[in-house]
Amino acid sequence: MSQTDPLELTAALVRCPSVTPEDGGALDVVQDVLQAAGFACIRVDRGGVGNLFARWGDKGHARTFGFNGHTDVVPLGKRADWTADPFGAEIRDGFLYGRGATDMKSGVAAFAAAAADFVTETPPEGAVILAITGDEEGDADHGTRALLDYMQAEGERMSVCLVGEPTCPDTMGEMIKIGRRGSVTAWIEVVGVQGHAAYPHRAKNPLPAMARLMDRLSSHELDRGTEHFDASTLAVVTIDTGNPATNVIPAKSTATVNIRFNDAHSGASLSDWLRAEADAVAAEFGVEIGMKIKISGESFLTPPGPLSDLVARAVAAETGITPDLSTTGGTSDARFVKDHCPVVEFGLVGRTMHQVDERVAVDQVHQLKAIYARILRDYFA
Amino acid sequence: MSQTDPLELTAALVRCPSVTPEDGGALDVVQDVLQAAGFACIRVDRGGVGNLFARWGDKGHARTFGFNGHTDVVPLGKRADWTADPFGAEIRDGFLYGRGATDMKSGVAAFAAAAADFVTETPPEGAVILAITGDEEGDADHGTRALLDYMQAEGERMSVCLVGEPTCPDTMGEMIKIGRRGSVTAWIEVVGVQGHAAYPHRAKNPLPAMARLMDRLSSHELDRGTEHFDASTLAVVTIDTGNPATNVIPAKSTATVNIRFNDAHSGASLSDWLRAEADAVAAEFGVEIGMKIKISGESFLTPPGPLSDLVARAVAAETGITPDLSTTGGTSDARFVKDHCPVVEFGLVGRTMHQVDERVAVDQVHQLKAIYARILRDYFA
Ligand SMILES: [Zn+2]
Ligand SMILES: [Zn+2]
Repeated sequence: MSQTDPLELTAALVRCPSVTPEDGGALDVVQDVLQAAGFACIRVDRGGVGNLFARWGDKGHARTFGFNGHTDVVPLGKRADWTADPFGAEIRDGFLYGRGATDMKSGVAAFAAAAADFVTETPPEGAVILAITGDEEGDADHGTRALLDYMQAEGERMSVCLVGEPTCPDTMGEMIKIGRRGSVTAWIEVVGVQGHAAYPHRAKNPLPAMARLMDRLSSHELDRGTEHFDASTLAVVTIDTGNPATNVIPAKSTATVNIRFNDAHSGASLSDWLRAEADAVAAEFGVEIGMKIKISGESFLTPPGPLSDLVARAVAAETGITPDLSTTGGTSDARFVKDHCPVVEFGLVGRTMHQVDERVAVDQVHQLKAIYARILRDYFA
Repeated sequence: MSQTDPLELTAALVRCPSVTPEDGGALDVVQDVLQAAGFACIRVDRGGVGNLFARWGDKGHARTFGFNGHTDVVPLGKRADWTADPFGAEIRDGFLYGRGATDMKSGVAAFAAAAADFVTETPPEGAVILAITGDEEGDADHGTRALLDYMQAEGERMSVCLVGEPTCPDTMGEMIKIGRRGSVTAWIEVVGVQGHAAYPHRAKNPLPAMARLMDRLSSHELDRGTEHFDASTLAVVTIDTGNPATNVIPAKSTATVNIRFNDAHSGASLSDWLRAEADAVAAEFGVEIGMKIKISGESFLTPPGPLSDLVARAVAAETGITPDLSTTGGTSDARFVKDHCPVVEFGLVGRTMHQVDERVAVDQVHQLKAIYARILRDYFA
């Protein structure tokens, strides 16, 4: 019986120019493989982006293993700096080159190939679901969230879910993500009264208040980390005024602050804290401080247990490395999945993701398929 | 004997479009009046701007009264907001309208008219010098400074000098300036290491250091004022980063700080202080902080004495108001003159200077000429 080659599938996907929100034919490539293996496939396209829902086995089965991933990619960056065609899937010195080679067309290829072969060779007692989106790198408003909405409406459920994002910093197998920090962004505007620098008492400079507020926020220790999380961090990412005149006190200044927070906080608790800090400084300096806040995602944790054990055992068996259970890094679509079922993330070394000359080691694509295949075998054993 | 009309002279000057560095024929207008009264006139044009040196009486006379002023003007601002031709010198409801009407074509007209009439009607034992520049509102690199250099080279000297800038905040006669604060501007750049907001430990955010430095500088009390000066002030006039990405820690940020300082400081002492503060913050935060400093002018003071008494008596006699001896406000060319002789400043109400519909009360132009004439009579009495 013919095995599905994850490298060929990765190459076919890389050749689809699927910079968000374009699909470039990528979802069809996956759908063809899955349909051939007996998966029921349905496109859940929303708001100009494509999504693919695929299930093998009975709907709503109590033993349903889910995979989640994305076929869209970030823009090329400086095209001239690429030494290979970003959509060419060239293989050179043991690496396959192309945008999405690690993030995460190889991940999608590996779990699609593993799942297709698994249900064909050893049909399990249960179901396998693949929820694949074309909108992860963009706003993610119409991506995995839309797939989960669809599933909920249709009575589709996953018992557990594995997100195939690259999770290993340097070495294949070294890290599983069992949670992610949340993210809050605040856009802050301090408003004073414009005036001449020689007559500061007639003006109300917003910048001393801005400096004090940014100092207070950035020097505050949010926490020292929790059992499974690093310490929460706050980054002042920009302060801007745009006043070209050295003898003019400006009327206002703006700043943006981004917080990555662990399970000691929530988006709401941090919003309250930010507003209280701003109010205190506004009162002290006699200025007005406005704030717009966006909670991009709450923190989440799937505590170490059956799912992380299952994945860790498979990783160790295939790589010889016992993976760390980590909650570091940015956000991922696992922040949506966690509201539906236990979710962990495991994938390739992500070192070149989002860079020019993004590439994946050919060996590791095969290794990743083997890991995903072993996870499926063990889960249904 | 015909008296020179300062209002006609003001109008003639306003009709010359002399936005720095343009002269628009303004200096010729003054030169014609002075030459007719027997002044030796010489143009000291430098670097594309015009300057006029005029002397009546003997060169180097130990009793030489000097006037200083400028005929250049600031740009119009929003032309559509003017209700009169900015170069039309329209008289309406007792006011003469036009750019430079208060700052300071009326001042130049008043002292030129007073001086011309004075030397014609009552030739004094001594000399009168008028040093008039076309480069005060710009960089001032080729203006009064060039005139003073010329005078020094030629053995020309003033015993005392009156600068005719507008000095009265609201009421004619209420304020003489006997000094000015100095001005220092610092352009500051904080350099860190760019990175992703989710991995702040791999980056080095310049903004916490920027916020701390700006907070330290703006909350520092430079002094509480000195005998003749208000407290020195520091204004952070801009902080800029220009980072549009909320998930990126920027590599650098810039800020500009302007200090207006009294005689408790010098440009050098403040430069040292700024650099020391920056170094302390740089060391604390592990960033690099660069700084470019420009000393626009040192503070100066002509202590209350014969010159301020002379001017104050004339003001009181003509207006009935005893003027305050002040050191408030921005910088003026008196900062250059003070290195050569005692200097004070007295002129009109400056409320509309640099604004649209700049205008001067017709009465006050005549009153100003009378004050300047009385000063000359008393000085040479
Ligand atoms: Zn990804
Ligand atoms: Zn002026």
